[in-house]
Amino acid sequence: MKKCNHLLKENGLNALLLAKPSNMFYLAGDGRLCSFAMITQDGEVALGVPKTDVEDVKERAVFDHIMGFENEVGMIHSIAHYFKDFEIDKGAVGLEYTFLTQPMMGMLTHPHAKPKEISVKDCTPIMSELRLVKEDEEIKLIKRAAAAGVVGMEAGIESLESGMTESNVAGEAEYAMREFGAEEFWRSYVCSGPRTNIAHGLPSNRKIQNGDLVMIDIHPIVVGYSADICRTVCIGKPDKEQQKAYDIYLDAQQETIKKAKSGIEIGVLEKTMHTILQDAGRGEQIFGPPIHGVGIEFEEAPLPPGHAFFHGEKEAPPLPANVVLAIGNCGLYTGKFGVRVEDTVVVGKDGSEILTSYRRELEIG
Amino acid sequence: MKKCNHLLKENGLNALLLAKPSNMFYLAGDGRLCSFAMITQDGEVALGVPKTDVEDVKERAVFDHIMGFENEVGMIHSIAHYFKDFEIDKGAVGLEYTFLTQPMMGMLTHPHAKPKEISVKDCTPIMSELRLVKEDEEIKLIKRAAAAGVVGMEAGIESLESGMTESNVAGEAEYAMREFGAEEFWRSYVCSGPRTNIAHGLPSNRKIQNGDLVMIDIHPIVVGYSADICRTVCIGKPDKEQQKAYDIYLDAQQETIKKAKSGIEIGVLEKTMHTILQDAGRGEQIFGPPIHGVGIEFEEAPLPPGHAFFHGEKEAPPLPANVVLAIGNCGLYTGKFGVRVEDTVVVGKDGSEILTSYRRELEIG
Repeated sequence: MKKCNHLLKENGLNALLLAKPSNMFYLAGDGRLCSFAMITQDGEVALGVPKTDVEDVKERAVFDHIMGFENEVGMIHSIAHYFKDFEIDKGAVGLEYTFLTQPMMGMLTHPHAKPKEISVKDCTPIMSELRLVKEDEEIKLIKRAAAAGVVGMEAGIESLESGMTESNVAGEAEYAMREFGAEEFWRSYVCSGPRTNIAHGLPSNRKIQNGDLVMIDIHPIVVGYSADICRTVCIGKPDKEQQKAYDIYLDAQQETIKKAKSGIEIGVLEKTMHTILQDAGRGEQIFGPPIHGVGIEFEEAPLPPGHAFFHGEKEAPPLPANVVLAIGNCGLYTGKFGVRVEDTVVVGKDGSEILTSYRRELEIG
Repeated sequence: MKKCNHLLKENGLNALLLAKPSNMFYLAGDGRLCSFAMITQDGEVALGVPKTDVEDVKERAVFDHIMGFENEVGMIHSIAHYFKDFEIDKGAVGLEYTFLTQPMMGMLTHPHAKPKEISVKDCTPIMSELRLVKEDEEIKLIKRAAAAGVVGMEAGIESLESGMTESNVAGEAEYAMREFGAEEFWRSYVCSGPRTNIAHGLPSNRKIQNGDLVMIDIHPIVVGYSADICRTVCIGKPDKEQQKAYDIYLDAQQETIKKAKSGIEIGVLEKTMHTILQDAGRGEQIFGPPIHGVGIEFEEAPLPPGHAFFHGEKEAPPLPANVVLAIGNCGLYTGKFGVRVEDTVVVGKDGSEILTSYRRELEIG
């Protein structure tokens, strides 16, 4: 919170007005839909939530003020109330430009919510900077999420047999993650055969066949923190082409993990991975950013530079220790099939610790 | 597509530039992340997708033009390319204001993407109007999704026993939906005990206890179409207070379903439901819109008026036949616990057809 107050002053912001659940969770201990948090430069934390949720939020959140509202008009009024209460009537307030759609933006900046003389500014870089380095307690939870990911991956891979659908495989992995103690998970990706070549392989009812590659990418949530693990396996014996692409990719991914330690730039890590793939003649088969941060969200800052538009992130500084990364986010796309191996790692001073240690062989059994 | 062209002309739009997967799916047969569709007034459909996905999209989508791009800069250039190709250099283009965050908006309207003389306008009302009335083929798929919802609900409720977590219950329901043939589902809500009082009851690791109410709200997707079903049940024998609140709510929900037929306004349906609850002395326990549309998304237009900001929807006309609604979206919140029963129904000329027929008793077994 101290760092937050400092960053607000440094950026000339009188307050943050947050609506993104993950950011609210980070600063107030609870984040939910249809709610907001106002954080002032002096460190006051004020929440507005649906009136139904007030008691539940009280049990979970850390705050100085809380209001329940009846409906959208009530939400607008409660924002106005806090502006008045904290005597913020000019200056600037930070909004999450990378989260807010146009009507949500319109609501938070409604003339009945925000005093006229207050300007608005994107606070995405501030929130990313705050969340970049994980505290010990956060890393502990990410480790538990990673353990749930390993259990889910094992269940998914052990269930595999030709004839079952991609959706069935996702079901096995998800069920196991919940059994293990994940309260939630982000959308699972399971794709097979030619569908392993696509960037976001959401599960379909395609039936898995002998000789198919199957890519399983799962993201459990444990006590609000996430992990990210992906494996590719072959149903039956992989052919030479599959094995070769896989070996090249795995080598690039593991070498990149070895390079991850504090002081290195994420752009350099991306380049390490891409150079190995390019040197193996696979430069044309790369797509998308191969590395991203992991924390409350399974995909968050930092991102390598050049993937900024949709994600709205700025270039990160050289990585400090205790940043958590997923390495291997984007695979190798040969046209006929794709391969991908992804692990969640904690960046340390002398190297990185892999949290998602689970078999990395293309061939099963 | 004819209706789309007509609406574009009527609204003075030269083209739509879509990025929301559900809208792209509706007009082009395929919708995915990090992609766009341009639909011109003359009915040309042009897609831009990650280069990895081109073959997969070709198998699924209906389009006149397709381009694969390498990265974000490539995406911007492919938008510019289509503007040039279709000779659109002035006029207006429709964007999904209710979907686009600020950086996504910035990307689609980037000076290297959009010619300077073209203005932008929200196309949310156009897309809602197009998707409002479901074709027979769409209703067939929603029925299959509803069947998956019933199977999931049955699995969730039959698994219930004290000591299991909310997350475990969600796991049972989700696994069964995938087994039945759902390729996906929207986030499941499972909450229990005092947590039934909150508006968005995402599953937690709270252990279910004897005497608890448990609320299960699930949303399977089958071949791109969704359904929405919610039930509340009691672990053990409900007490009088629980039973009374439940009976009042169920009565209001079922009476509202009976009133749903073509020609009625959705606001009138909302009022029907709220009046019954108010007359029973429960007016203070209402929160949120109790009705919404169901289709490609489990929550879509139409919405009752007054819930417009976050959702960005305009007031719908009197309901035509073949609109699909979820009735019972928001429950009754007593403070100590909440109750909710929600069904997906097709609005017809003489009444409505319930697609999610499954037991509605508070007491199990």
